[in-house]
Amino acid sequence: MIKRTIVTTEEHHMQRVKIAEIYHSMSSYDSKTITVAGWVRSIRDMKNFGFVTLNDGSCFKDLQVVMERESLHNYEEIAAQNVGAALIISGEVELTPDRAQPFELHAHTITVEGISEPDYPMQKKRASREFLRTQQHLRSRTNLFRAIFRVRSVAAFAIHSFFQERGFVYVHTPIITSSDAEGAGEMFKVTTFDLEHVPTKDGAVDYSQDFFSAPTSLTVSGQLEAENFAMSFGDVYTFGPTFRAENSNTRRHAAEFWMVEPEMAFCDLEGYMDVAEAMLKYVISYVMKTCPDEMAMFNSFVDKGLEERLQHVVSSDFARVSYTDAIDILKAAQKQGTTFKYPVEWGVDLQTEHERYLTEVHFKKPTFVCDYPAAIKAFYMRMNEDGKTVAAADCLVPGIGEIIGGSQREERLDKLTKRIHDLGMEPEQYKYYCDLRKYGTCHHAGFGLGFERLVMYLTGVDNIRDVLPHPRTVGNAEF
Amino acid sequence: MIKRTIVTTEEHHMQRVKIAEIYHSMSSYDSKTITVAGWVRSIRDMKNFGFVTLNDGSCFKDLQVVMERESLHNYEEIAAQNVGAALIISGEVELTPDRAQPFELHAHTITVEGISEPDYPMQKKRASREFLRTQQHLRSRTNLFRAIFRVRSVAAFAIHSFFQERGFVYVHTPIITSSDAEGAGEMFKVTTFDLEHVPTKDGAVDYSQDFFSAPTSLTVSGQLEAENFAMSFGDVYTFGPTFRAENSNTRRHAAEFWMVEPEMAFCDLEGYMDVAEAMLKYVISYVMKTCPDEMAMFNSFVDKGLEERLQHVVSSDFARVSYTDAIDILKAAQKQGTTFKYPVEWGVDLQTEHERYLTEVHFKKPTFVCDYPAAIKAFYMRMNEDGKTVAAADCLVPGIGEIIGGSQREERLDKLTKRIHDLGMEPEQYKYYCDLRKYGTCHHAGFGLGFERLVMYLTGVDNIRDVLPHPRTVGNAEF
Repeated sequence: MIKRTIVTTEEHHMQRVKIAEIYHSMSSYDSKTITVAGWVRSIRDMKNFGFVTLNDGSCFKDLQVVMERESLHNYEEIAAQNVGAALIISGEVELTPDRAQPFELHAHTITVEGISEPDYPMQKKRASREFLRTQQHLRSRTNLFRAIFRVRSVAAFAIHSFFQERGFVYVHTPIITSSDAEGAGEMFKVTTFDLEHVPTKDGAVDYSQDFFSAPTSLTVSGQLEAENFAMSFGDVYTFGPTFRAENSNTRRHAAEFWMVEPEMAFCDLEGYMDVAEAMLKYVISYVMKTCPDEMAMFNSFVDKGLEERLQHVVSSDFARVSYTDAIDILKAAQKQGTTFKYPVEWGVDLQTEHERYLTEVHFKKPTFVCDYPAAIKAFYMRMNEDGKTVAAADCLVPGIGEIIGGSQREERLDKLTKRIHDLGMEPEQYKYYCDLRKYGTCHHAGFGLGFERLVMYLTGVDNIRDVLPHPRTVGNAEF
Repeated sequence: MIKRTIVTTEEHHMQRVKIAEIYHSMSSYDSKTITVAGWVRSIRDMKNFGFVTLNDGSCFKDLQVVMERESLHNYEEIAAQNVGAALIISGEVELTPDRAQPFELHAHTITVEGISEPDYPMQKKRASREFLRTQQHLRSRTNLFRAIFRVRSVAAFAIHSFFQERGFVYVHTPIITSSDAEGAGEMFKVTTFDLEHVPTKDGAVDYSQDFFSAPTSLTVSGQLEAENFAMSFGDVYTFGPTFRAENSNTRRHAAEFWMVEPEMAFCDLEGYMDVAEAMLKYVISYVMKTCPDEMAMFNSFVDKGLEERLQHVVSSDFARVSYTDAIDILKAAQKQGTTFKYPVEWGVDLQTEHERYLTEVHFKKPTFVCDYPAAIKAFYMRMNEDGKTVAAADCLVPGIGEIIGGSQREERLDKLTKRIHDLGMEPEQYKYYCDLRKYGTCHHAGFGLGFERLVMYLTGVDNIRDVLPHPRTVGNAEF
C-alpha cells in the first residue's frame, strides 16, 4: 500500500483535533499537545513572536495560535503567508481565561499545506455581497457566508428531525415530470434532443424519439405525488429541489430552490396550521440553540432586531384570521389613513404590502390568513360550505410576507372532477390523483414551505441569491 | 370561521391516536376509549360479530378491530366495505396478551370516511412487482412497498444524522448546471426554448436567448461544487438528486436517482474509507433498530439471509485490498478453475463478476479496492507516487457490487492542470476548481454513495424501480 499523509479525519486515529472540539471540551485540552489543520484568517508578525488566526470550518470561532521566532525554525516562512493559506499546526493548548479568547495554541511546528497566491480575492477588507456573488466558489470562507450556509445546513436537519420524530415518512418525489402540478408556473423542459435537429413528425415535435417518449419538465411541486404516499403512510413530507422558469429578477425569486411539502391524512386546516406553527417554532429554537455564534453575528451585522424577533415568534401563538376578516382589517386601516398601492376588495389576491401590514403592523407576529376566495386559489383546494371560499391558509411572517402556503385538499371526487372540468384542465392528466378519491379517500391537508425564504427569515439576509450555495436566476447558471 | 372535521393530527387536541402509538405504549391504553383512523386491510363478517384489520400507515403492524352486530347500528354497512376503504373508529382498547395480536379495539362507532370502489386494483391477492409498477400511486399500500419506502425514509434520516453528529455541513449543490462534472455521463438538457422553434444564429443554437443565456443540463454529480464548500467548512456532504441520460435498461440503473457525496478537507484515502465504513455501519444499525418489523418481512419474503448478512457487516471490519493485489487474487481464482467472462489483466476495469467474486467469494464481506490504474479513473483523482495509479477506492458489497466510489482529490495545481490538458478537457470549464488549488489547497478526499443501491442492499430488493417512489427510466416518466 502507498504511504498516506498523516493528517486525516477525526475518525482515523484521532490524529487531528477540530477547533470546535477544543471549544466544546476546553478544560480537557488544557496543556495538551495537539495537531490542528485549517486556513489563515490573519497573521500578525510582532518581530520576536507572532499570531496566526486559524479557522478550520468546524465552527464559527477562530483559533488563536502563538508562534515564537526563537523556537520555530520556519518562522519567516509562516509570517510571510497570505490570508487563505492552509496550515497544519502542532502545539500545546494554554487556557487563557483572562484574555479575549479563552485559549491559545503555542505552536511547536507549523507546516504549510497550501499557500494562498497574492491575488486571493477574499482579502480581509469587507467585500460587497454583489462582488462575492461573482466568487461563489470562495465566498463561504467569509464570516457572513460561513454563517449563512451553516444555518442553512442546521435548519435543513431540524426540518428532518421535526418530521421524523413525529413519524412522518420522507418521500423523494420525482424531479423530472410529465405532468404540470398546478396548472400554473412556467416550467423548464427536459430533453435529450439535439437542439439543432429536433425531430418532427407531421409538423410537430416527435416526442416518441425523446428519452422518456413524452414531453417532460422539471417539477414545480411534489405535492400531488406526495399525496399518493399520504394515502398509505398517513403523514409524509418531501424535501427537495423545485423549479420555476419565471423571468423575474427579484430579491425573493430563484429558478431553482428547495421546498418542504408535508401531506397529512385525516387532517383538516386547523391541523395543518398546528403542524406548520409547531415546525417553524421547532426549527427556530433548534437553530438558535445550535448556532449561537452565527445568530449573534447576524444580529450585530445584518439585522439588529433579529434574535429578539425570533425569540418572540417561538414564545407566542401565531395569529389566525379569515381572509374575509383580513379584508375588513385592511379597509379599516385605509379609513385610518394607511394607503395601499393595490386595491383592497373582497376577492382580490393579497399583495405583499397587504400581507406585511397584517403581520407587521396589525398582528405584529406570524399570521395565518385562511379561507380565501376559491377563484384565486388552486384547483385541488377544498371547497368550503359557503361555496365561494376554499380551506386554504397562508402563513405570513414579518419582514418576508408569505413563507408557507397550504390547504385542505379536495377529497370529494365529484367536487374535484367538477373543478378540473370548470377550469378547463385535462382530466386525463389527473387520473391518478382522482384515483386517490375513489379508493379510501379521506380528509387531508398539506403545505409548502419555501426553504430559502425560511433561511432568509432565520438570518435576516434579504436576497435569495445569498442563501443558495450556487443560485440559479435568469442568465445565471455559472459555478 | 368555518366548522372543521373533528379528525385532526395528534398535535391538534390529541383527538386521534396513531396505531404506532398504541403499540409503543400498550399498557397505558388498556381499557381506554380512543379514536383511530386508517384503511381497511381486510374485513371478516362472522354473522354476529366481525373483524376489521386496519392500518393507518404509522407502523408496519395492523390494528385488529372487533365489531358486534348488536351494538353497532351500521354493522351491515361496515361489513360490506371493500379493502382500501377509509374508516374512523372509536372504541375501547383491550389488551389480549394470550392471542396472536397483543390488543384489540372494541368498536363503539365506525364511520365510513371514504369507500373503496369495487375495481380497487390493490386486492388482497399477491400482485406481481411488475404489475405494481403500473400502479405507482397505490403500491405503497402493500406490505412490501410500505416497508421499502419506510426503510428508504429512515435510511435517509440516518445519513443526515451520521454526518450532522460529526459536524459535517449539508450543502445543496445545484441541479441545473452549465458544466459537466466528470467529462463522462450523458446529460439531460434543460431549456425554455420552444422545441419546435429553437432559435439559431450563424447556423448554431442561439443560447443567448435561452433562460440562462447558456447551454445547461441536469447535474450528474455535486462533487466539484461540494469541494468549494469543503475548502471552507472542512467536512461537508450533499444529498440530492442526480441524473444520467443513459439508454440502459438494467435492474440497477435509473435516469434520476439520489446521491450522497461527502467531501473532507485534510483527509486522505484511509480517512475516506474509515468514514464510509462507519457511515454504512451506522445506517444499517439505525435501520435495523428503527424498522424491526419491516426488516423481518424482507428477511422472510424477499431475501432469506438478509438480517444475518447485515448483522455480519455491522460487526466485522471491511476488507481493504489494492487493485494490484485484487488482480492477483482473480488470476489465482482463474488458475483454480473459476471462469470469468471478461479478461483479468492489470489495467482493465473490474467488471461486476470480478467485484462480486472479490466481495462474495474471496473476502465474504464489504471490500474496498484501492489504488486503481489512472487510465480508468476520473481526472480529479490524486496521482500516486508510482505515477501510474491514483488514490481511488471503490467499496464493493455482496449482492450488489460497487456501492460507493471515492478518492483523494488531486490537490496539486500543476498535476491537476496537466491532467486536464492531457485528457483534452476544456481548462476554462475548470477555472473555479483550479482556484481551490491556488488559494489554500490541502489534501482532501470524498466519495459518492448511490442512495438507491443502499436501499436495495438494506431491503434485499433487486430492482431499482422498486425502491424509487416514482422511477424514471428510458420511456418512463409517468406518475
